[in-house]
Amino acid sequence: MGMPAALPDTMRWAEQQLIIVDQTKLPQEVAYRAIRSAEEAWEAIRHLRVRGAPAIGITAAYGLYLGVRDWPTPDGDAFFRRLDERIRYLDSARPTAVNLRWALERLRTRAERMRDAEPGALKDELLQEAIRIQQEDEACCRAIGEHALSLLQDGMGILTHCNAGSLATSKWGTATAPLYLARAKGWTLRVYVDETRPVLQGSRLTAWELQQAGLQPVLICDSMAGFVMRRGEIQAAIVGADRIAANGDVANKIGTYSVAVLCSYHRIPFYVAAPYSTVDGDTPDGARIVIEERGAEEITRSFGRPTAPDGIRVYNPAFDITPHELITAIITEKGIIYPPYIGHL
Amino acid sequence: MGMPAALPDTMRWAEQQLIIVDQTKLPQEVAYRAIRSAEEAWEAIRHLRVRGAPAIGITAAYGLYLGVRDWPTPDGDAFFRRLDERIRYLDSARPTAVNLRWALERLRTRAERMRDAEPGALKDELLQEAIRIQQEDEACCRAIGEHALSLLQDGMGILTHCNAGSLATSKWGTATAPLYLARAKGWTLRVYVDETRPVLQGSRLTAWELQQAGLQPVLICDSMAGFVMRRGEIQAAIVGADRIAANGDVANKIGTYSVAVLCSYHRIPFYVAAPYSTVDGDTPDGARIVIEERGAEEITRSFGRPTAPDGIRVYNPAFDITPHELITAIITEKGIIYPPYIGHL
Repeated sequence: MGMPAALPDTMRWAEQQLIIVDQTKLPQEVAYRAIRSAEEAWEAIRHLRVRGAPAIGITAAYGLYLGVRDWPTPDGDAFFRRLDERIRYLDSARPTAVNLRWALERLRTRAERMRDAEPGALKDELLQEAIRIQQEDEACCRAIGEHALSLLQDGMGILTHCNAGSLATSKWGTATAPLYLARAKGWTLRVYVDETRPVLQGSRLTAWELQQAGLQPVLICDSMAGFVMRRGEIQAAIVGADRIAANGDVANKIGTYSVAVLCSYHRIPFYVAAPYSTVDGDTPDGARIVIEERGAEEITRSFGRPTAPDGIRVYNPAFDITPHELITAIITEKGIIYPPYIGHL
Repeated sequence: MGMPAALPDTMRWAEQQLIIVDQTKLPQEVAYRAIRSAEEAWEAIRHLRVRGAPAIGITAAYGLYLGVRDWPTPDGDAFFRRLDERIRYLDSARPTAVNLRWALERLRTRAERMRDAEPGALKDELLQEAIRIQQEDEACCRAIGEHALSLLQDGMGILTHCNAGSLATSKWGTATAPLYLARAKGWTLRVYVDETRPVLQGSRLTAWELQQAGLQPVLICDSMAGFVMRRGEIQAAIVGADRIAANGDVANKIGTYSVAVLCSYHRIPFYVAAPYSTVDGDTPDGARIVIEERGAEEITRSFGRPTAPDGIRVYNPAFDITPHELITAIITEKGIIYPPYIGHL
């Protein structure tokens, strides 16, 4: 299978620096940013230049390496003190990002196992571990994409919501992975992208990366998805996941639940594509997941201009819960899981 | 039944001028605008300072009166030539607005019946006819509101989409009329307002007018309506209509169809409130209604700033069709119509 002609190049380690696309500049400007220090990694994570759990973890891993690379290391203890200080520093960039801590801990564990090695060898090993994290994420996304591709066919109309894309991972994305693989096979898919109010990850990010890859996506407002389905334009919907409960309930970007209901009504398969690490066995069902509510201004002045009257009450949940009975299949790197999910995830 | 404390004062004839709220300035600014000539009426209609079929018709009717009021009229023929010229002029403000032509024709017919009267008496009669159009619209909306109110109960959560409100009519609105009447009865409703992408009539207009009337609406993005229903917050949805086919299929603002499907899934009544004149007996079903597609920039730069990449493909239907089987009841000034609609509309 060949590579897509133009998979968007969202994250690349080269010549001792991590090159990322600055997502805060999209879609107006495609600005690549070089991360050459822990401070630049911290800044990129903090200011959402890089977002998406896998992409944050990878950035932090390289950031940690960069944070010790040039440190003079008279002895092992001093090196580990520096390492732990840099871990605390990078972890503070987004305290609630689980993948951020996970990646930093993984590098720490790796170094610990080589505690008696030369500092130079330790530094090399940290870089290798960061590269492994990136490569594993890439392989994971590609495996998700290959499994998901087996559910699709040439010529289909596909709907996606939010950005579970290349921009959120090292490459491929999760929900977008089968779209890129389909393109590489020469398939023609009609991909519809929900703009994903209020923060517009669909129109700003997903539309951009699919366009870069030559998929010619069609952008719609969230409110149009039902009508597009009614017209027979959609044969499958595929979205990512922020968390998957043990019973298969899925927490994902607000609006995902409506897409799932609309798919159910129109008898369209609704797929969730996510790394297996998204499954949280300690959460029995979606009802236990606390829904973060975000500020009113995302809705009332999200584009720098007031779009609602002053003082209006707003309900702005960041996520919603899609119950397992609306999910046709959950696709992870391990394969495709069909209902019943309980006990099989 | 008392009047609501603060029904928004969106359109008022007083001291030989029509005072309207300039809807292009909402919600940032509540700017009242005096229409004192046919030219000012034309300008307000053309530039969408007034919108909504009934409100456009009323504005045109007063505009026509204003267009002949100060015209020296040596004889009847000259008066009618002036009248017809002013009708053509006002009709050109929005050539596809059916109510605009209807109101102008109605005044023309009224004048024709009094062809031999003094010009002064003719002018008075035109004003009286404009006032009657406004009063009839007000009575129509109030009757819709009273019928619709009989379907609601104190304490309910109500969802509305787009603006079928006071701002689109002379007063009360259609979908909003029962909300204002409920407020006047002292009921407490939890009203959720879809922002209604892409043009945001919900957040800009409906949220504003309900807030003015003290209803404390809750603004949500369109993508959130399903999740709000899932949480049990909605007991009825009520929307307006642009056109109702003979079989009960309804054309209304894009997103209406999704709301109807979501209501069906959650077993929530879905009501359409509209003047009986909205029923188009010549259109057998919704499939015959051509869906207007609007420009991409409404989605890609609707807030004055690009929110999608350059050159992105967009599908932007202005309306959608909600099939009759998803509509619990259609409420007109004549009463509540339940399925089967065919033959009963």
